[in-house]
Amino acid sequence: MSSTSVHASPFYCPIESAVHPGAEQAERRALAWLRRSTLCHGDTDLARFAGSRSADFYARFAPNADPDRLWLAALWVYWGFAFDDARCDEGPFAADPVAFAPMAFSVQRALEVPGRLHCGDPYAAALHEIGELFRAAAEPVQIRRFEHAHRAWLTGVQWQVSNRAAGRMPDLDEYLTMRLHSAGGEPTYAMLEIVNGLDVPDAVMDSPAVRALTEMAILVAALDNDRHSHTRETGRHQTEQSIINVFRVHRRCPLPQAVDEVIALRDAVLDRFLVLRDRVTPRAAAPLRHYLADLGHGIRGNIEWGLRVPRYLAPDGIAPAAVRIPEQTTTDHWTDTPRSGRQDPRRLPSIAWWWDDLAP
Amino acid sequence: MSSTSVHASPFYCPIESAVHPGAEQAERRALAWLRRSTLCHGDTDLARFAGSRSADFYARFAPNADPDRLWLAALWVYWGFAFDDARCDEGPFAADPVAFAPMAFSVQRALEVPGRLHCGDPYAAALHEIGELFRAAAEPVQIRRFEHAHRAWLTGVQWQVSNRAAGRMPDLDEYLTMRLHSAGGEPTYAMLEIVNGLDVPDAVMDSPAVRALTEMAILVAALDNDRHSHTRETGRHQTEQSIINVFRVHRRCPLPQAVDEVIALRDAVLDRFLVLRDRVTPRAAAPLRHYLADLGHGIRGNIEWGLRVPRYLAPDGIAPAAVRIPEQTTTDHWTDTPRSGRQDPRRLPSIAWWWDDLAP
Repeated sequence: MSSTSVHASPFYCPIESAVHPGAEQAERRALAWLRRSTLCHGDTDLARFAGSRSADFYARFAPNADPDRLWLAALWVYWGFAFDDARCDEGPFAADPVAFAPMAFSVQRALEVPGRLHCGDPYAAALHEIGELFRAAAEPVQIRRFEHAHRAWLTGVQWQVSNRAAGRMPDLDEYLTMRLHSAGGEPTYAMLEIVNGLDVPDAVMDSPAVRALTEMAILVAALDNDRHSHTRETGRHQTEQSIINVFRVHRRCPLPQAVDEVIALRDAVLDRFLVLRDRVTPRAAAPLRHYLADLGHGIRGNIEWGLRVPRYLAPDGIAPAAVRIPEQTTTDHWTDTPRSGRQDPRRLPSIAWWWDDLAP
Repeated sequence: MSSTSVHASPFYCPIESAVHPGAEQAERRALAWLRRSTLCHGDTDLARFAGSRSADFYARFAPNADPDRLWLAALWVYWGFAFDDARCDEGPFAADPVAFAPMAFSVQRALEVPGRLHCGDPYAAALHEIGELFRAAAEPVQIRRFEHAHRAWLTGVQWQVSNRAAGRMPDLDEYLTMRLHSAGGEPTYAMLEIVNGLDVPDAVMDSPAVRALTEMAILVAALDNDRHSHTRETGRHQTEQSIINVFRVHRRCPLPQAVDEVIALRDAVLDRFLVLRDRVTPRAAAPLRHYLADLGHGIRGNIEWGLRVPRYLAPDGIAPAAVRIPEQTTTDHWTDTPRSGRQDPRRLPSIAWWWDDLAP
């Protein structure tokens, strides 16, 4: 079956929906913090923060988080979406890799330096304060994992910004590598341990199977975000880097076929994620089991959030008055059947190893 | 006392010299591997690899390494210097941040992907094979630490390449942050665990004190490399980013005073390293003790290597016939007295925290 528009295609996602009951409280706490921060200059700024519904987003990633920590992850997500809009996807740095590198890696250092720090850049200053909150709440190991993930995210954005400057559409394998980082999935998932108060031992977290599962969850969510963004941006940025445009440019697919290929590729990755997770979970200790469950919650929650968030639905991205948000996503959005396509993911060099025998 | 040339200034370094007895064997094994690799097209290439004396370099970092693993770290160092010359400091990418990002972060992915991988880029292909050797020799935790360090290095180079493209000389604090990464000290030190067969627990390695000690060792070595490079490059690249030029441009220091300020700043960091290490070592378990000792060996060994290596001494960087290498560095190269300067390092935001109370 071909589809002619992206949001008409239902999502294959055999993972139960779950939302943390403290989502609204986390939203209130995070928005109260942001209102006092260097990033907020009034009600319009605050409404734009609120419009990303970041607390709802993270409440779906970590439905069993410590209620006193959930807001910390939400806070970073609010910051991340704002940074993304101001400096990555749009704004003066979006196609200026020369300016992006010093800015982004100074911001990274502001995250990493502990204690009091004066930052001239308001995004760096806010991120430093978020880092201080993280350091007060979690162990150094979890903080370092988040910092590594955060730096890797910025390398993905640097790559994307560089391609944009050159008017360059990456090929499929290159796009997947870039998108694994640029989508921000790494820092998002790296906060699971912090909000859950978990410590997955290093030897477990760094094992090939858990690395592959983390990367697969990141990629599925990233490709789903491409679908959501495409819905929002249709007609505006046909030359913008996205998985759909990669198929259109490099495989010369017409739009409906490109969409079908994207969905099939994404469904294959999700299926592999589910199979490998089923093999790893029975032998996993409690912290890993919780982590793996939340990787799945993130995949599901990211879609649900994307279907409802003003960021993707409203022209100005401001919530909640500007658009009607349906209370429940309907069954039309979902399918039980994965697609199949022409592209065998096992022939894509950068991800083929996910199909190796990785079970511990 | 003022100095008028850089190599006339002796190094303050109250750390014992040590070299692994298997340095030559490591050199032979690494060069034999490189001769068969995609990077080597004949004797001139091989002579240029040999000219970096990377095995001697790493034998000084890890004087007690497993003799069967020392060559692995040497191999990466040979690769790193070649990559640096071909793609970072010189060559078509050196001032082209738009091209650097896709190239560098694809190379990084080639390191990270396990198993068989076809890479069109010979540097990526060789690095992937080095990664395979590392994976066969060490635990996933040590591999991941090296990978994180490697990515961070490339972000520093991206920053440096971006500044070069813009003709931009970073200010002192920014330079220190950039140089902490761009000098390649992170992956170099991250190989210590691999060659020593050690496993420093995560909670220890990620503690603020051990992070600070690692960063200080990296910065001291990086600033010493700036001094060596300045000797080599005097008269060629006066606008090139270096700690000496940072003082000349932003503090309007004449060259001799700039050199004095650089030495004083570097000596202050080394003194802080020694003080903090003395506090941490007595309570450290054997793996950490070994790691901390080798951080110091790296500082000392990096200077000794820099005083003798054709890379810094010979116009074409080729060894060994092109230049006479003194068998022993003389006592003229060393001083027991640290300098003092005008710049209080505790007023530099990105490193001030090293002087906090970090002892565990």
